[in-house]
Amino acid sequence: MSFSSVSSSSSSAAAAAAAAASISSSSSAFFSPPNFPSSRVSNASVPVKRVGTLQCVSIEEKTAYKTKVSRNANMAKLQAGYLFPEIARRRQAHLLKYPDAQVISLGIGDTTEPIPEVITSAMSKRSDGLSTLEGYSGYGAEQGEKPLRAAIASTFYRDLGIGDDDIFVSDGAKCDITRLQTLFGSDVTIAVQDPSYPAYVDSGVILGQTGHYQKELEKYGKIEYMRCTPENGFFPDLTTVARTDVIFFCSPNNPTGSAATREQLIRLVQFAKDNGSIIVFDSAYGMYMSDDNPRSIFEIPGAREVAVETSSFSKYAGFTGVRLGWTVVPKELLFSDGFPVAKDFNRIVCTCFNGASNIAQAGGLACLTPEGLSAMREVIGFYKENTAIIVETFNSLGFKVYGGRNAPYVWVHFPGRSSWDVFSEILEKTHVVTTPGSGFGPGGEGFVRVSAFGHRANIIEACRRFKQLYR
Amino acid sequence: MSFSSVSSSSSSAAAAAAAAASISSSSSAFFSPPNFPSSRVSNASVPVKRVGTLQCVSIEEKTAYKTKVSRNANMAKLQAGYLFPEIARRRQAHLLKYPDAQVISLGIGDTTEPIPEVITSAMSKRSDGLSTLEGYSGYGAEQGEKPLRAAIASTFYRDLGIGDDDIFVSDGAKCDITRLQTLFGSDVTIAVQDPSYPAYVDSGVILGQTGHYQKELEKYGKIEYMRCTPENGFFPDLTTVARTDVIFFCSPNNPTGSAATREQLIRLVQFAKDNGSIIVFDSAYGMYMSDDNPRSIFEIPGAREVAVETSSFSKYAGFTGVRLGWTVVPKELLFSDGFPVAKDFNRIVCTCFNGASNIAQAGGLACLTPEGLSAMREVIGFYKENTAIIVETFNSLGFKVYGGRNAPYVWVHFPGRSSWDVFSEILEKTHVVTTPGSGFGPGGEGFVRVSAFGHRANIIEACRRFKQLYR
Repeated sequence: MSFSSVSSSSSSAAAAAAAAASISSSSSAFFSPPNFPSSRVSNASVPVKRVGTLQCVSIEEKTAYKTKVSRNANMAKLQAGYLFPEIARRRQAHLLKYPDAQVISLGIGDTTEPIPEVITSAMSKRSDGLSTLEGYSGYGAEQGEKPLRAAIASTFYRDLGIGDDDIFVSDGAKCDITRLQTLFGSDVTIAVQDPSYPAYVDSGVILGQTGHYQKELEKYGKIEYMRCTPENGFFPDLTTVARTDVIFFCSPNNPTGSAATREQLIRLVQFAKDNGSIIVFDSAYGMYMSDDNPRSIFEIPGAREVAVETSSFSKYAGFTGVRLGWTVVPKELLFSDGFPVAKDFNRIVCTCFNGASNIAQAGGLACLTPEGLSAMREVIGFYKENTAIIVETFNSLGFKVYGGRNAPYVWVHFPGRSSWDVFSEILEKTHVVTTPGSGFGPGGEGFVRVSAFGHRANIIEACRRFKQLYR
Repeated sequence: MSFSSVSSSSSSAAAAAAAAASISSSSSAFFSPPNFPSSRVSNASVPVKRVGTLQCVSIEEKTAYKTKVSRNANMAKLQAGYLFPEIARRRQAHLLKYPDAQVISLGIGDTTEPIPEVITSAMSKRSDGLSTLEGYSGYGAEQGEKPLRAAIASTFYRDLGIGDDDIFVSDGAKCDITRLQTLFGSDVTIAVQDPSYPAYVDSGVILGQTGHYQKELEKYGKIEYMRCTPENGFFPDLTTVARTDVIFFCSPNNPTGSAATREQLIRLVQFAKDNGSIIVFDSAYGMYMSDDNPRSIFEIPGAREVAVETSSFSKYAGFTGVRLGWTVVPKELLFSDGFPVAKDFNRIVCTCFNGASNIAQAGGLACLTPEGLSAMREVIGFYKENTAIIVETFNSLGFKVYGGRNAPYVWVHFPGRSSWDVFSEILEKTHVVTTPGSGFGPGGEGFVRVSAFGHRANIIEACRRFKQLYR
């Protein structure tokens, strides 16, 4: 390994960091302090290099080569870091401050329980097979392997008029959201639930669908924020929502944990139909539903003409690291000129993507066997027990608590307080990482999201600490 | 599985197909004939449904619901299908015509040889581990796992001033090309080698960087096509190339198989520096290099200030289906305002992507062990023997043949003939799938690309058939 260029590269990095000072925070620990010595560089040489670097900075800052390529103005609109890397950064900083702290992460929504063996063994079998002539496969269909598309259609969309070829297998719902945004392009207007999963807004900003960030409102221009509060049962008052081309809607909801009822979704579909809008329905938590609410937008009659749906194996099978999801684009969904949305999405998938990993797809197929489904339901049941423990804890402390019943997220109200303040207070005093509600939009201010993903002992310990802090 | 809606969905699909008639070809077999009965629908019921459908079509065609969302005008600029799905479609049509034909595919550039066991066993071990508490991992760093980033840096960029944190692990170079285009946005101008890998152009069209397709020129407006022909040794005459913001450059080249010399790349880097351009260097075939040409753009002094590099395990380790690649974005590369390109790319990766599959990453790490590297080199050596056989065949038939020595592609000249005609002639008469040169841009007209990816027996058989056809 070579670090021969540490000195010169760090000096430009310093110049770059200076140039980047207007951005309030990096979206990850990617840009470490420029002079931070690599563990493979002997300490002995560091002081010498530092002197050289310090001398260089003042000279090179003026002469550092810059291309003549303008930075994408949409990228410059983005505020701070993408939420979750930002939380990871704060967690890291906390660990530096308290190296011995037993930090428990109920923040990022990352699964913690092992993947059932019936699923991993299918993946290891597929891996092993790749070293044999019979088992080897190269490029698969960009849309996913036929048996998996068929299994997704029959498992999640039986009797809903969704065919195998309406299913596009992907490496995850988050990635598909950007692919959908790329499909729609920069001229569409979008609406999001407020609060909402930040990828909808941030990808919209990147694709140029929005105006600038308006600091006083904590909103981007041109986005319709559909306020979801305890007062309206976390379902927006559609009579006050302006028409947009695209409506992002997540149910069961991340972060509020609420789930829209059938009657509410009928209204949403009617609203889209009246306005000629397209709903992007995010059902990544559908299997967490306890109540009799729809788990797919396609349970609503007519939805195939106004909606796509994106979903994921991440929270069902612990595939957050394995990467597998899907998007449903019904043939009936048409642009204003009658062109099928699915045909353009297919083109995006073929041009900008090359299919999900074949090994992950083997895992997905195993998930949808009777044994796989039952194993997934068991893991989901475990996380739902976690949720109940968290809900009960905050209830017992007198907090107003939402969500939890139909989603692995508990949405705790701290009326009148800043979410980031509460986040910091909890981290500082209990070493538990949560997620500040305002990270999901201005409508999340005053709330904190507590994720139920965690080992049982950690959930119990975190709740013990919450009780200590807030009793 | 339910097909209760076959009738209504097929009628809208028919309307959609009519609306879509202006697009000359689908990019895949995605839109099957709307009335094609599924194997799970009993034949007995089909005639009844067909009658119903036929009655409905005339009524519903007029009333099929359309949203009011305008189709993305950039999507509408795209011509026909993305090249490789289009070839897959023609292969499929050929198989329908000749169901008993022994079709050999030397078209799409898909790897065929099993992945060395040292690599697959690392992946199956990682898969198995995911079912244990100790071996489980959820979300990884979006930029890739640290040991893999370090191994890529030390294996491919030793002594080149590229650090671990300059490496962004991905699900493949093709996917990263779209992420880079998303980063650059719609206001940049781009240059491509002509001919070139179609993803550069098509992603540029989708992101809105180009004008309309000019049929008479077979080019998109606003793209600078850098002609690469036998006359200029497949390296563009830079004195005639207009300045663009971004220059896509692939060496060893897909499709021509040529590799730029050190002296040529020095000129390219100087050209970029003079113009303030950013080079996107595609080194996906670097390990196929036999001659002493650079395998990375970062072998050229100063390249870190003007270039990013994207590469892939696909053609090195047979990972076309496993999906793993990487992109290098040096800290020294700055936009005109001094903002580091890497910082925006990091934001794209964090917002629009969630990391490559952890199982694939375990495979990538195994690839870069001494045993993995030696196993990869063996497979690459096998494909290079294939290449030699193909080159010799066409040479013996009196064709002018290019490439082959530094890349797994042989670029055969059919002067004065249409590439698609030659493609069809070869397919019709030998049942061998190749790739028409014009699919890579107007500069590819009159050439056919023959891929060396194939089992040895198939390569020998294909060459026997070539000799029969062209002797």
